[in-house]
Amino acid sequence: MDPYGLRRVVSPANVLPQRAERLDAALPLGPDELSVAVEALNVDAASFRQIEAAAAGDEGRIAGEILRIVRERGKLHNPVTGSGGMLIGRVSAVGPDHPAAGALRPGDRIATLVSLTLTPLRLDRIRAVRREIDRVECDGEAILFATGLWARLPPDLPETLVLAALDVCGAPALVARHLASGDRVLVVGAGKSGALVCAHARELVRPGGLVAAADRSEAALASLARAGACDVTVALDATDAVGALAAARGAGGPFDVVVNCASVPGTEMASVLAVKDGGTVVFFSMATSFTAAALGAEGVGKDARLVIGNGYVPGHAELALGLLRRNPGLRLLFEERFGR
Amino acid sequence: MDPYGLRRVVSPANVLPQRAERLDAALPLGPDELSVAVEALNVDAASFRQIEAAAAGDEGRIAGEILRIVRERGKLHNPVTGSGGMLIGRVSAVGPDHPAAGALRPGDRIATLVSLTLTPLRLDRIRAVRREIDRVECDGEAILFATGLWARLPPDLPETLVLAALDVCGAPALVARHLASGDRVLVVGAGKSGALVCAHARELVRPGGLVAAADRSEAALASLARAGACDVTVALDATDAVGALAAARGAGGPFDVVVNCASVPGTEMASVLAVKDGGTVVFFSMATSFTAAALGAEGVGKDARLVIGNGYVPGHAELALGLLRRNPGLRLLFEERFGR
Repeated sequence: MDPYGLRRVVSPANVLPQRAERLDAALPLGPDELSVAVEALNVDAASFRQIEAAAAGDEGRIAGEILRIVRERGKLHNPVTGSGGMLIGRVSAVGPDHPAAGALRPGDRIATLVSLTLTPLRLDRIRAVRREIDRVECDGEAILFATGLWARLPPDLPETLVLAALDVCGAPALVARHLASGDRVLVVGAGKSGALVCAHARELVRPGGLVAAADRSEAALASLARAGACDVTVALDATDAVGALAAARGAGGPFDVVVNCASVPGTEMASVLAVKDGGTVVFFSMATSFTAAALGAEGVGKDARLVIGNGYVPGHAELALGLLRRNPGLRLLFEERFGR
Repeated sequence: MDPYGLRRVVSPANVLPQRAERLDAALPLGPDELSVAVEALNVDAASFRQIEAAAAGDEGRIAGEILRIVRERGKLHNPVTGSGGMLIGRVSAVGPDHPAAGALRPGDRIATLVSLTLTPLRLDRIRAVRREIDRVECDGEAILFATGLWARLPPDLPETLVLAALDVCGAPALVARHLASGDRVLVVGAGKSGALVCAHARELVRPGGLVAAADRSEAALASLARAGACDVTVALDATDAVGALAAARGAGGPFDVVVNCASVPGTEMASVLAVKDGGTVVFFSMATSFTAAALGAEGVGKDARLVIGNGYVPGHAELALGLLRRNPGLRLLFEERFGR
């Protein structure tokens, strides 16, 4: 058994696949592996922009560059940006010892929830480059290890909607573990993950709780309110800790739980100041500074649980898709932002 | 009431004292403030080295530079390194609304547990520069806000020992919240915080639990074992995730709780791999990368609670000093490393 795919690492020796320079995608399928006939790669935005710029926007050259990276590395791991993306395809084989052996069958359509930076990949051809959504349609084969996450693509929801939700599906699932009915919650950042967190928190804190959504964009807050995803909105700049503290107080703070889904750096302190003693701050923003959070809380003597937003919680994909299904307003908001 | 000391910020406007360019240490004491007659400043090591180098090692010039920073900024906030330190002194006045009003009296000797980067300070003179321990002995006055942490200096323990323990006292206190009897714990890093965490974990996981200490220094592990602070030791390099995984398995892993007290970057993945599904990783290392921890756990599909080591937990100072008092081996280890 090889749950982390160590046997596929070609170089350097003795690193995890994510750290590897090169993987071997051509080994026979292991008993605890799963293979996918790839239909499309959703390239990480930073990686796609870099490749697009290097190719001067030419779609043929973009395809050529992606084929070259995958040929050289055995994975779509952009050597400049260090980032990957995810893929969509149909299951072609499931090893008998893979955890999905009972759940998936050849032909099932899935998306991988694990980064392309650690996914063994062989590309046969690129059929189309879709610059507007950072995607390439292609033929090839990918391998998922036993620890590699995936989600079944449901027939009842548009694919772009599903992918947008799966991208941030860990956030509502993890926040759920920290919420109870009656809690007062502040969600900083009204983007994709913030919207899912708000909608789920609203289900969980009833009766008696409160979900406040904060953002510096009044437009983003207005569309969240229209979607019925929050109880109140607070316009604030979370990089201004002092101003944000006053705004959060005005909106019902301090809060039992603060969820940081901001897209900019420097919002740790506003999050720490808005939570009450004994409360919890869950950081999902990839711009979070570990030291700013840890030292910031100590500096103001705040006894708060500070949680790193692990993107994986069992059942997270189904939870996020369920939120879209049962909240028509939230679904409309996602469709407007990410296409139908 | 002004729990964060906002009224003492001179410039720029509307930031917290830590972010301020300049504080006003000369305002009359507020009703929720506390003043300290300063005896010594324990300068952050990075800051002291920078000042020492800029002064070409001359003690008079080191003193002059520290006086200049404090005169210009109203706090010992090194503009080059961005770091501070802590101070020791005797309480001179306690405002009636300060949380310590019932607990502290003028003349009580305390150490501040809040950074000098946010502590209003006036220096009258520097009496001695003690380069070997990054300390300056001085006369002056400092202000603690209502949220500013402090600890009483006990008469029964040597001061250098107390300061060494207070520096990392949050670690054992926070870890205690995540431990139960019977738990198997791995502590990565056998330095100061690792030693305190090991010793406290050993008290908490009995009966039936296990405390494994990991480090790449065999000498550090041997002295931890001699101190009776752990059940087993594991020599491993936590920057080598694959090698560390094998070593952790050999030492009884996967573990219920992993505590990262490493002093080097790149140890997130080894910590994540060593914990079992449903377990907890507490990160105290200031070299922790938020994204490496969050994305690393998702990449290997590990459902683990990932906790940022908040340095403040109520009662943390007394807990750490108690550990030294009741563990003679641990006390000896601290005395050997940090002086008597």
